[in-house]
Amino acid sequence: MPVQTPKEPLVSQDTMWAIEKSAAAPGLSRITAPIPKAGPKDVRIRVTAFAICGTDLHIVEWDDWAASRIKPPLIPGHEFTGIVESVGSEVTLVKPGDRVTAETHIYCGLCYACRRGLPHLCQNVLILGVDRQGAFADYVVIPEQNVWKLHPDIPEEIAAIHDPLGNAVHTALAGPVAGLRFAVFGCGPIGCFAIGVLKASGAALVAAIDKNPMRLSLAEAMGADLMLHVERDAVVPAVLAATEGRGVDGMLEMSGSPGAFRDGFEILANGGRVSLLGIPSKPLEIDVAREIIFRGATVQGINGRWIYDTWYRMEALLLSGKLNIKPVITHVLGWSEFDRAVELQRSGKAGKIVLRRDHP
Amino acid sequence: MPVQTPKEPLVSQDTMWAIEKSAAAPGLSRITAPIPKAGPKDVRIRVTAFAICGTDLHIVEWDDWAASRIKPPLIPGHEFTGIVESVGSEVTLVKPGDRVTAETHIYCGLCYACRRGLPHLCQNVLILGVDRQGAFADYVVIPEQNVWKLHPDIPEEIAAIHDPLGNAVHTALAGPVAGLRFAVFGCGPIGCFAIGVLKASGAALVAAIDKNPMRLSLAEAMGADLMLHVERDAVVPAVLAATEGRGVDGMLEMSGSPGAFRDGFEILANGGRVSLLGIPSKPLEIDVAREIIFRGATVQGINGRWIYDTWYRMEALLLSGKLNIKPVITHVLGWSEFDRAVELQRSGKAGKIVLRRDHP
Amino acid sequence: MPVQTPKEPLVSQDTMWAIEKSAAAPGLSRITAPIPKAGPKDVRIRVTAFAICGTDLHIVEWDDWAASRIKPPLIPGHEFTGIVESVGSEVTLVKPGDRVTAETHIYCGLCYACRRGLPHLCQNVLILGVDRQGAFADYVVIPEQNVWKLHPDIPEEIAAIHDPLGNAVHTALAGPVAGLRFAVFGCGPIGCFAIGVLKASGAALVAAIDKNPMRLSLAEAMGADLMLHVERDAVVPAVLAATEGRGVDGMLEMSGSPGAFRDGFEILANGGRVSLLGIPSKPLEIDVAREIIFRGATVQGINGRWIYDTWYRMEALLLSGKLNIKPVITHVLGWSEFDRAVELQRSGKAGKIVLRRDHP
Amino acid sequence: MPVQTPKEPLVSQDTMWAIEKSAAAPGLSRITAPIPKAGPKDVRIRVTAFAICGTDLHIVEWDDWAASRIKPPLIPGHEFTGIVESVGSEVTLVKPGDRVTAETHIYCGLCYACRRGLPHLCQNVLILGVDRQGAFADYVVIPEQNVWKLHPDIPEEIAAIHDPLGNAVHTALAGPVAGLRFAVFGCGPIGCFAIGVLKASGAALVAAIDKNPMRLSLAEAMGADLMLHVERDAVVPAVLAATEGRGVDGMLEMSGSPGAFRDGFEILANGGRVSLLGIPSKPLEIDVAREIIFRGATVQGINGRWIYDTWYRMEALLLSGKLNIKPVITHVLGWSEFDRAVELQRSGKAGKIVLRRDHP
Repeated sequence: MPVQTPKEPLVSQDTMWAIEKSAAAPGLSRITAPIPKAGPKDVRIRVTAFAICGTDLHIVEWDDWAASRIKPPLIPGHEFTGIVESVGSEVTLVKPGDRVTAETHIYCGLCYACRRGLPHLCQNVLILGVDRQGAFADYVVIPEQNVWKLHPDIPEEIAAIHDPLGNAVHTALAGPVAGLRFAVFGCGPIGCFAIGVLKASGAALVAAIDKNPMRLSLAEAMGADLMLHVERDAVVPAVLAATEGRGVDGMLEMSGSPGAFRDGFEILANGGRVSLLGIPSKPLEIDVAREIIFRGATVQGINGRWIYDTWYRMEALLLSGKLNIKPVITHVLGWSEFDRAVELQRSGKAGKIVLRRDHP
Repeated sequence: MPVQTPKEPLVSQDTMWAIEKSAAAPGLSRITAPIPKAGPKDVRIRVTAFAICGTDLHIVEWDDWAASRIKPPLIPGHEFTGIVESVGSEVTLVKPGDRVTAETHIYCGLCYACRRGLPHLCQNVLILGVDRQGAFADYVVIPEQNVWKLHPDIPEEIAAIHDPLGNAVHTALAGPVAGLRFAVFGCGPIGCFAIGVLKASGAALVAAIDKNPMRLSLAEAMGADLMLHVERDAVVPAVLAATEGRGVDGMLEMSGSPGAFRDGFEILANGGRVSLLGIPSKPLEIDVAREIIFRGATVQGINGRWIYDTWYRMEALLLSGKLNIKPVITHVLGWSEFDRAVELQRSGKAGKIVLRRDHP
Repeated sequence: MPVQTPKEPLVSQDTMWAIEKSAAAPGLSRITAPIPKAGPKDVRIRVTAFAICGTDLHIVEWDDWAASRIKPPLIPGHEFTGIVESVGSEVTLVKPGDRVTAETHIYCGLCYACRRGLPHLCQNVLILGVDRQGAFADYVVIPEQNVWKLHPDIPEEIAAIHDPLGNAVHTALAGPVAGLRFAVFGCGPIGCFAIGVLKASGAALVAAIDKNPMRLSLAEAMGADLMLHVERDAVVPAVLAATEGRGVDGMLEMSGSPGAFRDGFEILANGGRVSLLGIPSKPLEIDVAREIIFRGATVQGINGRWIYDTWYRMEALLLSGKLNIKPVITHVLGWSEFDRAVELQRSGKAGKIVLRRDHP
Repeated sequence: MPVQTPKEPLVSQDTMWAIEKSAAAPGLSRITAPIPKAGPKDVRIRVTAFAICGTDLHIVEWDDWAASRIKPPLIPGHEFTGIVESVGSEVTLVKPGDRVTAETHIYCGLCYACRRGLPHLCQNVLILGVDRQGAFADYVVIPEQNVWKLHPDIPEEIAAIHDPLGNAVHTALAGPVAGLRFAVFGCGPIGCFAIGVLKASGAALVAAIDKNPMRLSLAEAMGADLMLHVERDAVVPAVLAATEGRGVDGMLEMSGSPGAFRDGFEILANGGRVSLLGIPSKPLEIDVAREIIFRGATVQGINGRWIYDTWYRMEALLLSGKLNIKPVITHVLGWSEFDRAVELQRSGKAGKIVLRRDHP
């Protein structure tokens, strides 16, 4: 499903390059689209780099989830960074020329969740590149309230992936970490970021579990203490042995895999926490009595990022040098290599891939 | 399966009346047993009243759970009250003549959970009447650390059921309550107690859900604002209508029923808490993505009672008159009516039944 | 210092009645002022009732605090209710005709505190009637983000005092309440409201402490269990006696009085919480080692209200009937009786006074 | 005030070497004392190393606090490690030959604080070497519940100072740390340990404040990012400059100095936490309105260590290599050098001094 190039690209001052899900079918198209309009509270950003999320792969492939959620035509993309090109009349947070990225959960500010301080759980949330036009384009428009101004010392390839890194920070820091022991199931980019956050935050042990040896080696590079291959290693006994039989104090689920739900509870100490971020593709069977109730476990559904508590802490971890996520960024490509990036990611041969603007 | 009376009861100063699971089969026997010995840290209690828990019914019926856990011969019974008859040489908390009941999770005090302040989640827990000799007897022996001295104003029939009432207090108070809205699935005695605790603690709305009209009427007597019959009422729309579509802030699961897990999440506001106490009889299918992750829910496994934070708060709620659980105690019988009590409870025609000593 | 009436009141479509601190001196003036202009994100409200806060008395009297903070000319007033008269072009939360009140901490939304979910602690906060034009007037303008739409069942005199009631809810619910015991120092309106919130939320005991017998009788009407007069009663022994020597689990400081800081810690159980809302007029001496450190106390500075978690819970407590604050509203007067209201309040002969519009 | 040697030391199987506060006056004596007896729940430990706490210096100097608290004769000393020599008949946690140290707050287990899970705030606490015979001796007796069994990889000089290190862990981890910024006032051993714990736990910035350059250099060795001398540096502007004017998220008070209370709040971000461990020698004046209430600060009194949550996390931080406290241990001496150790510590020329047994 290579990205298709339209036959007669239009070029004008009011149009821009973009990648689009043009129809309810697999694939994406390169298009020339109108530059999006911005209202008085909006910020228009010239995108300089973006990254492809697992969600974007679902949109490319047009699986059941995508078919039920996405309304073509849609420009996908929610992991990005750029430069403010213009601001609406009421915007005060940023000005043209500022380097920014965005909290991609566009929240209403008025629902019960928003008004109680939980905008990341907004009942009317619109996700950038899913429910509204996204960032795989020359320009993207974001409400001021969703813009995050970048510190000058944050490099562009890291700025482009604040969204998934924020997921990892939110998940890892959803409970105490220092001097405690953890297991992370799923060593894709977010799992690997979370391992880095846990270790930076004083986790005494992090066991990393995956079935992809390349990902396990990224986990190791991020500081995991114990790398376990779900098919080759006996995960439960190995983790119990590494914790004097006590089990881990926390389990981070980043895979969505049924096996992780099965093993993850078995290695949890009584009273431990389970933080769920990975999205299972369908309902799962859970032995609620044994795994949750008798264990006294606390199971947290994790969604988005605290707005902006997660962001401040993420920035501080990065700037202080406590957290180094560069090992996970295995490729920095250009926008013209979008198809290759999709293929690399699909094949499991990459960590995080950042794509930089390579046209004027 | 009536309780059987042994043909030649022994009577002596060293023996006592008791009810026993004598063999790995349905039923219980009335026996004459040796009075249990007490060590230097133990308290021997003359039982004056007890109650029959759902766990005890499993033991009577000898279902799969009972067969896998119980090692006959065993005297069951863990909900009780009595008078201290004697204390070991090192006991200082109580003295003979004191009215007491007990925390029935006999914890080791030395495991990882115990030493971290979570003795209710002790890894080596022995439950009274399940893993060691229980209270369906003239005398029971309890370690001092598990004894709770009763305030003189607590009536005996309430003293006898501090164990299940404590479960309800623990579950209800596992998060903020005042000014929030709740649903309670399952209106057996613990569910009804929890309704009372929620209302005493400032819950603005409590929806009670069950399939037994008698239980729903007990829920109403305990203060529930909305009684819903799972088969006759449309639970989800009714709760959403009563909460302006927001859903409830908290859901207490006291039924163990798969339907409660299905409906309970559907009516949960984003960011809400789910406190699980009811024991499902087998693994359940849960749509983790939809119900827990996207909702940002926190799901808590609740076990036992905080030792003794729950107890102090329970006592204070009772003594202050904030919490009145008498409506749930539908029957006060004598020990000689044990069979009738089992039948009443099994048939769902009773709330809580307290049985008082009716022999010398 | 009666409110002065200007000699030649102007009357026109663009002007309104208001009460103003016209100069840096004691007293207030009745004036004719321009009706305030509203921007696209603002809501203009026709005020129907307001109340006088202790802060307003400081402004009337022009004490040191007022002189350092207030920049005349200023229309004071931040406790009020009214009807939406018009809305800016971007407002969606309310429409003309809606009954409303307001969160009076106008927060910037962009500072570190705001962006971390603590807008009530905004570093750039502007308080209505203190830092910007207030509600002692026919009309007041409020940003949409600060407007609270009232439920139809909330009566006007209660709607007018959501601001101080919200302080009380915030303070009382700043930690666990149900089944715990409390002392409240200071039984002015907010102290009395807090007593009502504590009792509605399951507090097992509330000791109320003041030096004004009328206020102590209001405290009793709100449900306090023990009324102590600081000059006639021995506060510390009385509270210890009422708690079996354990002390209270929580202390709410609503008086700002040095004596409350001295006695309040002495009656606090180890590990207890102290929630401070009352503003001491000058620095206080605290025996930090004895009172805070060895006691393991947690001392919370309470400011404003959680936006809007406090508001939802306040509304739910009121609508459910759990919380009845009418005993504290000792007077309902008209705006023309403003001087009398100030005098009543100053003299300590009133609880809360609500003033209703009594001109067209 | 050198330690005095008794003229005719007794030597026998039942006696031991010890250091004693023999009379209500300055100084300590070397004595021959009876080896302490142990009950059935006790553990007798052959001390192999100990350290001198600030508390011990007060006892040596016999200041007001010591005179009011200590009842001579008393063997001081509560920071120590050793080998189990014998155990009481009911002890199961350890056996002779085990390496151990101790939680030195001997808690009753029966008071309101203990029974609510706060034994570190026990109302009847007896502190080793303060309220009962301590560890500056060949042998010390500890109840089993207070014994901590050491991991074989913990070196002896670190084992000897688990008590103050635990204070630091308790204080530092009394709130979130990762990605946040802190100031630590007071860089004695506990302050320096706390700096190490904060940095190991992901603190993005730690400002260390003291007036002793040697201590500031230890703080730097432990990872502090900013070292400020209270007399030479402008502490408040320096910290604000290092935090873009936001202030720190947390302040740890380890000095007991009035200046720290003054400056510490000034640099605290709104909503920040203040954790107080340092003991001021007398009551302090605090501008409660400005510093605590308007700031929305949370001020925590910290006492002892969580039993044993703090201990498990401390051990895990040490064993994982996350926390290295060796830079703070500036001297390892022998027991015969006790006088020199006291002098070094008094003069502020040492960090932590560990004293090893140097007689058979």
